[in-house]
Amino acid sequence: VGLDQTTQLSLRPQIIELGVGQPDPRLLPGDCMRAATAAMLAAGWEPLAYGANAGPENLLSQLALRIAQSEREPSLSEMIVTGGNSQALDELCTLLAQPGDAVLVEAPSYNFALQILRDHRLQLVTVPVDENGLVPDAVDDVLRTLHEKGTRPAFLYTIPTFHNPTGVSLTLPRRRQLLAIAASNDLWVVEDDVYRDLVYSGSAPPSLWTLDDAESVIRLGTFSKVLAPGVRVGWMTAPRKIITQLVGGGLRMSGGGPSHFAAMAVAEFMAAKRFEPHIEHLRASYCGRRDELSAALDDLIPEAQHQRPAGGYFVWVKLPRSFDTEELLPIAEDAGVAYVPGQRFYTGGSGNRYLRLSFSMYSPQMLRDGVLRLRTALDRAGA
Amino acid sequence: VGLDQTTQLSLRPQIIELGVGQPDPRLLPGDCMRAATAAMLAAGWEPLAYGANAGPENLLSQLALRIAQSEREPSLSEMIVTGGNSQALDELCTLLAQPGDAVLVEAPSYNFALQILRDHRLQLVTVPVDENGLVPDAVDDVLRTLHEKGTRPAFLYTIPTFHNPTGVSLTLPRRRQLLAIAASNDLWVVEDDVYRDLVYSGSAPPSLWTLDDAESVIRLGTFSKVLAPGVRVGWMTAPRKIITQLVGGGLRMSGGGPSHFAAMAVAEFMAAKRFEPHIEHLRASYCGRRDELSAALDDLIPEAQHQRPAGGYFVWVKLPRSFDTEELLPIAEDAGVAYVPGQRFYTGGSGNRYLRLSFSMYSPQMLRDGVLRLRTALDRAGA
Repeated sequence: VGLDQTTQLSLRPQIIELGVGQPDPRLLPGDCMRAATAAMLAAGWEPLAYGANAGPENLLSQLALRIAQSEREPSLSEMIVTGGNSQALDELCTLLAQPGDAVLVEAPSYNFALQILRDHRLQLVTVPVDENGLVPDAVDDVLRTLHEKGTRPAFLYTIPTFHNPTGVSLTLPRRRQLLAIAASNDLWVVEDDVYRDLVYSGSAPPSLWTLDDAESVIRLGTFSKVLAPGVRVGWMTAPRKIITQLVGGGLRMSGGGPSHFAAMAVAEFMAAKRFEPHIEHLRASYCGRRDELSAALDDLIPEAQHQRPAGGYFVWVKLPRSFDTEELLPIAEDAGVAYVPGQRFYTGGSGNRYLRLSFSMYSPQMLRDGVLRLRTALDRAGA
Repeated sequence: VGLDQTTQLSLRPQIIELGVGQPDPRLLPGDCMRAATAAMLAAGWEPLAYGANAGPENLLSQLALRIAQSEREPSLSEMIVTGGNSQALDELCTLLAQPGDAVLVEAPSYNFALQILRDHRLQLVTVPVDENGLVPDAVDDVLRTLHEKGTRPAFLYTIPTFHNPTGVSLTLPRRRQLLAIAASNDLWVVEDDVYRDLVYSGSAPPSLWTLDDAESVIRLGTFSKVLAPGVRVGWMTAPRKIITQLVGGGLRMSGGGPSHFAAMAVAEFMAAKRFEPHIEHLRASYCGRRDELSAALDDLIPEAQHQRPAGGYFVWVKLPRSFDTEELLPIAEDAGVAYVPGQRFYTGGSGNRYLRLSFSMYSPQMLRDGVLRLRTALDRAGA
C-alpha cells in the first residue's frame, strides 16, 4: 500500500494516516469479486449493455430481502441502485433543490457531503449534534426561523447511525421526534446510512426510513464500506415518487443505471452467499481496531475525551481547551501521525478542539503507535 | 435478446425496433472483457478501492496516446474519466449552469440530453441544424439576442460529428466559424463526441476540441458505443480549469472517480491491445448495416428523403408533407416496426415529418424487413 495515481489512496510513507476514512485494502474481497465477475460475464451479455434505469432487478431483489431481515421490506418500486452515496446525494440535489435553497446539515457533518451541497450552490443551515446525535428541538427552531423568513429548506442531510465524524447514533426517542417534525413540516430527510452494517456493540438502531410512516425519508445505503468503494454501487430506499422521478429522469433515461457492470458483479457476489461472511469478517477486524484505538487513547492521552463508537470508522476526540487541531496537524505530521482537524466538519470555523481518527486502515498495533505519536505531538505542542 | 429487467433493452417480440439507439448485444466483447477483468483482479486490490478523482492514470495515459494518433495529444491535466457522456453532461450542468440559465442546443438534438438539461431547469434556446450541421450564423444571432436581453448562455451543447438524430457532420469551415464565435463570445462549447470512432466513409472530421485554440471546448468521449455501455466509462478532454474544478469538487473528493471498477477493466482491455481490432470489427459490421438500411429506403420508400450518414448509428428520414410521424407510429407498430418520431428531438413541436431509424441493432436482412414493414405502414396510413 503506497502512493499511486490509480486510486484515491495516497499514503505518506513515514506517517500513520489516521485521517483516511477508507477501508483497509487488505480487507477488500479480491478473490470473491474475481469469482463473481467471471461468473457474471460467463452468464451473458447483460453486464455490458445499458443497465435498467433503476438498476438490475437481481441486485434490487436481493437487497430487498436483506433489508427485510433487520428493517422492513421495501417494494421494488421504493428502491433504486445508485452510483454510491456521493452520487446519490448529487442526484438528489438536482432533483430536490435549486441554487440558493437552504439545506439543513448537522454540525459537525461529513466534510465532502457538505462540499457536494456547496457545489450545488445550496445555503447550509446547521443544526447541532450532541452525544445523543442531532438535536430535534434545534431542527424545529431552525425550521421556524426559516419559515418566518418565508423559506423552506430543500431537505435535511443527516447521518443518524454511527455518525461521521462523531461516531454517535441518534437515540430512538429522538428518531421519532425528528420524524414527527419532518412530517409536520413536509421536510425531506436524506438519511446517509453508510455505516449501518459496521456495528461492533449491540445492533444498529432502526433506520429513519424504517420508522418513517409519512414518506419523508430517503435513505442512502452503499457497498463502499462493506464490500468495495471501487465498485461505486449503492442503493436508495425512498418514497415511490422519488424513485419514479429518478428512474424517469434524463440522466438514467440516457445512460441507464449507474455503475451497471459493477452492480451486476455485486449481485453475483451476493447470490454466491459471500456477502454475510465477508461482513462478519469486517466486523471482527474493525471491532478489534476500534477497541485498541479507544484503549490507547485512554492509556496515552487521558486528558482527551472521546466516546467509543458502537459502529462505523471514526473516533471523535476532544482535546483540552489549549489546543487548536489545525495548528497541531503539522506538528503531528512531524511526529509521524495524521488526522482530520475538527474544523473541516463545521461550516463556520468552530470545532478547533476536535480531531477525527479513523481506525479502518491499520492493525491494532499500528493504531497504538499512531496514538503514541499523537502523544508526542501534544507534548511538543506543549500547551 | 428479449424483454428483461436487468438492462435498458426491452424489445417487443413482434416488432423490429429501429428506434433503439443501442449496440447490438451480439457485438459486445464479452470474452475479451472477461479476460480483462480477470487479469485486473489478479493484479491487485486497486480496482476495489476508491478510484483516483480524475480516473485511473493507466486509462488516461492510454487514451491520451490514442487521441494523439488522430487528433492532438492532451496532457493528463486536460483529461478526466467520466461515468459516460450522460453523467459527464450532468456534472457539467452542475459546474457551469444555474437554473434558469439559457443553454444553446441544436434543433434537432439528442432527446435525452435535452432532458438532462431540462432536469437542471435550464432554458433551452435552439439553433438550427441543416445538411452541413449546426448553422454558426444562427448561433451568432441567438447570442446577440440573448446579449440584448442582458443574459449569457451557460454553454452550447452540440453533437458535431455523426449527429444524433440527423447523422450529419459539421463541415470544417463551419467548425472554424463556430469556434471563432465561441472565442469572441466567451462561450463554453460542450462537444458530445460519442460516435467519432464509428466512421464508415472516409475519416471523421477533426473534433472541435482539436481545432480549438481559445480553451472554449469541453469534449465528451465514451466507451458506450465502441466497447460496452454497461461499463459506464467515458472521458473528457477539456481546458485545465474545467478538469481542476471537477477533480476537486465534492462529488469526486467524496466518491473518487466514477465507475472505477469498470474503468480499470477498460484500461486492461486497452492494454491487451483488444480495442482497435474490436472497433474495426464494429465498423465493418455497422457499415454493412448502414448500407443496407440506406439502400432499402431508396428501393422501397423512394418518396422519403435521407442522407446516408458517414458514421454513427442513425438515418434521419424525411417523409412527404402528408405524414405526421407521431400519428404514424402506432400504425407502424401494428405493421411490426418502430422508430423514434422526429418531434422528440425538437423542443417546440416541429419535426413531425421526420423519423429516426437506428441500424445498430439488427442484421442487414432484418433492417430491410423493417423498411418493408415501414412501407406497409405508409401504405396503410394511405396519405
